Amino acid sequence: MVETRRQQIEDAASALFRERGYSATSVRDIAQALNLQGGSLYAHVASKEDVLWSIVERAADRFDAAVGPIAESGTPAPDRLRAMVRAHVGVITGDLGNAASFLHEWRFLSPERRAAVNARRDRYERRFRRVIRDGVTAGDFAPLDPRMTGMAVLSALNGIATWYRPAGDRRADDIAADYADLFLRSLRRTSSDD
Amino acid sequence: MVETRRQQIEDAASALFRERGYSATSVRDIAQALNLQGGSLYAHVASKEDVLWSIVERAADRFDAAVGPIAESGTPAPDRLRAMVRAHVGVITGDLGNAASFLHEWRFLSPERRAAVNARRDRYERRFRRVIRDGVTAGDFAPLDPRMTGMAVLSALNGIATWYRPAGDRRADDIAADYADLFLRSLRRTSSDD
Repeated sequence: MVETRRQQIEDAASALFRERGYSATSVRDIAQALNLQGGSLYAHVASKEDVLWSIVERAADRFDAAVGPIAESGTPAPDRLRAMVRAHVGVITGDLGNAASFLHEWRFLSPERRAAVNARRDRYERRFRRVIRDGVTAGDFAPLDPRMTGMAVLSALNGIATWYRPAGDRRADDIAADYADLFLRSLRRTSSDD
Repeated sequence: MVETRRQQIEDAASALFRERGYSATSVRDIAQALNLQGGSLYAHVASKEDVLWSIVERAADRFDAAVGPIAESGTPAPDRLRAMVRAHVGVITGDLGNAASFLHEWRFLSPERRAAVNARRDRYERRFRRVIRDGVTAGDFAPLDPRMTGMAVLSALNGIATWYRPAGDRRADDIAADYADLFLRSLRRTSSDD
């Protein structure tokens, strides 16, 4: 796959944002990572915030594309949640810099863009709340609070963006399967819930 | 309680760090939040990094003081984990700015200080791995991987520092109890684990 210059800039920037944070990264740092002059970067991007915005939008698009169709599939809640977890972990581990920038650096966007991201995050989180609520309604899951449980699930999953090492001994799919098992153990209705 | 000037500086700084991040906060911002001249702040602190270091050390001390004695208590793993969760959530919700600065801004410390924080975090995480391992050994918990399960538990708990609102409808103790229930549902050995 041929990467466009714009894509290279976003990749270099998101790696730097993950490592040292958005505020501590300068346009010059991004240019240096690509062996470019700082000035020539401005032929491709309007501002550092503009690069962050592209990264954040791309990440949000990826999470939506991976998880959205599964969330809408209407499959039983336990299977749906398992597939959503696998898809979510796949997006995180597939591009750690992009995911970490989305998860941690989005607050440095302008207020309007931040509001737009907030709205997308809400919509995304609602999918996790919905699958939990559906499972509770169907009797597959214990009567847990969908909002709090959804936050716990997403926080646990997003932590993977911080500790995951691609060269580590655990494959992303195995991690996703273990997390899904962990959540489903927790959520499934048991005889003591009756 | 009379707050020292130094404590006021740390409180103002940690609130700003939580809101906009360490890098985007200047010494002048901290001074302004306290109605001080930027220069007069330097009578109390050597540098912005020095303030962050005090905040991070204070947070680490609080987590250790709250969770350490419980972790060493030798009580059965399910009760111990529940008490550790309550203590950990209490530290987070008791001072959100301090906890969030510790959790998210510590990477802006100098390499030596970062290494010191990393060592303390490792030691702290080990307490969660140990209670899980103890529960597995005693047959209270299913044979789960203590490392991964410990990461999932701590990531879920630390997410509270991001979404918790003191003026919200949920009390910190109730949130802690719900999280502990969620984790224990997941961890407890069931007949299908045999």
